[in-house]
Amino acid sequence: MANFISRRQFTIEWGHCDPSGIVFNSRFFEFFDWGTWTLFEAALGVKPADLGATFGIVGIPLVDASARFLAPARFGDVVELTSHVKEFRRSSFEVEHQLKVQGVLAVEGRELRVWATHDAATHSGIKSQPIPDAVIARFEVR
Amino acid sequence: MANFISRRQFTIEWGHCDPSGIVFNSRFFEFFDWGTWTLFEAALGVKPADLGATFGIVGIPLVDASARFLAPARFGDVVELTSHVKEFRRSSFEVEHQLKVQGVLAVEGRELRVWATHDAATHSGIKSQPIPDAVIARFEVR
Amino acid sequence: MANFISRRQFTIEWGHCDPSGIVFNSRFFEFFDWGTWTLFEAALGVKPADLGATFGIVGIPLVDASARFLAPARFGDVVELTSHVKEFRRSSFEVEHQLKVQGVLAVEGRELRVWATHDAATHSGIKSQPIPDAVIARFEVR
Amino acid sequence: MANFISRRQFTIEWGHCDPSGIVFNSRFFEFFDWGTWTLFEAALGVKPADLGATFGIVGIPLVDASARFLAPARFGDVVELTSHVKEFRRSSFEVEHQLKVQGVLAVEGRELRVWATHDAATHSGIKSQPIPDAVIARFEVR
Repeated sequence: MANFISRRQFTIEWGHCDPSGIVFNSRFFEFFDWGTWTLFEAALGVKPADLGATFGIVGIPLVDASARFLAPARFGDVVELTSHVKEFRRSSFEVEHQLKVQGVLAVEGRELRVWATHDAATHSGIKSQPIPDAVIARFEVR
Repeated sequence: MANFISRRQFTIEWGHCDPSGIVFNSRFFEFFDWGTWTLFEAALGVKPADLGATFGIVGIPLVDASARFLAPARFGDVVELTSHVKEFRRSSFEVEHQLKVQGVLAVEGRELRVWATHDAATHSGIKSQPIPDAVIARFEVR
Repeated sequence: MANFISRRQFTIEWGHCDPSGIVFNSRFFEFFDWGTWTLFEAALGVKPADLGATFGIVGIPLVDASARFLAPARFGDVVELTSHVKEFRRSSFEVEHQLKVQGVLAVEGRELRVWATHDAATHSGIKSQPIPDAVIARFEVR
Repeated sequence: MANFISRRQFTIEWGHCDPSGIVFNSRFFEFFDWGTWTLFEAALGVKPADLGATFGIVGIPLVDASARFLAPARFGDVVELTSHVKEFRRSSFEVEHQLKVQGVLAVEGRELRVWATHDAATHSGIKSQPIPDAVIARFEVR
């Protein structure tokens, strides 16, 4: 049993890059966010904007994110971003992202997200909730 | 009678700049947005996040924006942004922004915004509404 | 004789949108920049990153930009951006952009850019230069 | 002996926030970058844009970044970002960032950066280089 993987190709834009001519670091975290939505839409067959209403959640907020920058990505580079859920826990999950430039791994990312519902009693206004088995099953590839 | 002017100083950051070493154009429109909120808070004495609740509006959405780029702003430059309402119309208003680098005008901006309430019947979900005289009066400096 | 038009489709991302749930205004100016590079690559057959070296210029810096926001674009919307050069002048040109959501015009943009070379004698370090006829000819569709 | 700590206060802007009304995650990595430059300027007394020329480096590129999101930051929140170098290694260093909202820790960040010079022989065009003792000494508070 393997993990469902989504792929997305896009071009590095001028506005993504900083004065050293390479992608500014925060942009990769934007790309990871793109990757997670793409992954969820592909695995669940639900449009990102409908995810909350479909599953009775407020969203899948991020609680932890990290990236390793191994090689630069530059203006005009066509990059491939692959994303998969590395692990589902009870009410959270870890997404792994790999961004390749011409087949070479340039950036690795990791996001820890929670399956969240409203909760007026908490400071953040949300609380985590068990991820339905039916959701998890859609990320398994037999 | 003159217009109320707000001033804001900040530093151009690395991540604001593109590979040519100057601020990427879209960032100035972010700065203008900062300027408008700063202006409204200063003139009305209401925190931006409370503007809607205070005046019974959903916000002051932008319908038109423009900028003239006269001189570059670079990483580390300390810039001054001045903003004022050039004209109040019935339900819209025009904000003018000037961004100076070491006293020299670098970018001029203009935003046309509306005083907006919810309206489920429209495509955008909002409609414009007359700006209260008491609001307009706060932007006048005698 | 018509103008060469480039088209580009993409999805509105979560990170493009602001608390009102629609694309934050400055993002459209990023999109316009994408559109101009896409247009130039399509018309000239030169990768954006090679444009400077190919034509002996430092780039095509923006001197003026504007946008009209006619309808909202929201998270998950698949949008189409079309871009064309409305007019070539001696050393500058005007690009027009249209962004449509489900076939409906949502945002119109305009960029005035210059064909620029290095010039150490100027404050900005660049100066405009006549656009080669051969470049202009590539944007004409018979 | 303690570490030199820099402090920076700023306001969360409308354009920093996403449709859930809180700061979009990638923005915090922008803020961390601000924090590192602020820290280096304060500790070394050298303007960020002059850092390279002063020390014969190309910069302090990021090789690893992470963040923990503990509590939300919202439009209008005045936040305080504190930054310090947790550890200097031979040619790299780790910066720790804490972002507080009304005195409560909201986000913790970590950046691993290298002290880098040009090296045409490498894929990235740069290589790490030992950090001068005189630089490290400026980050120590007796």
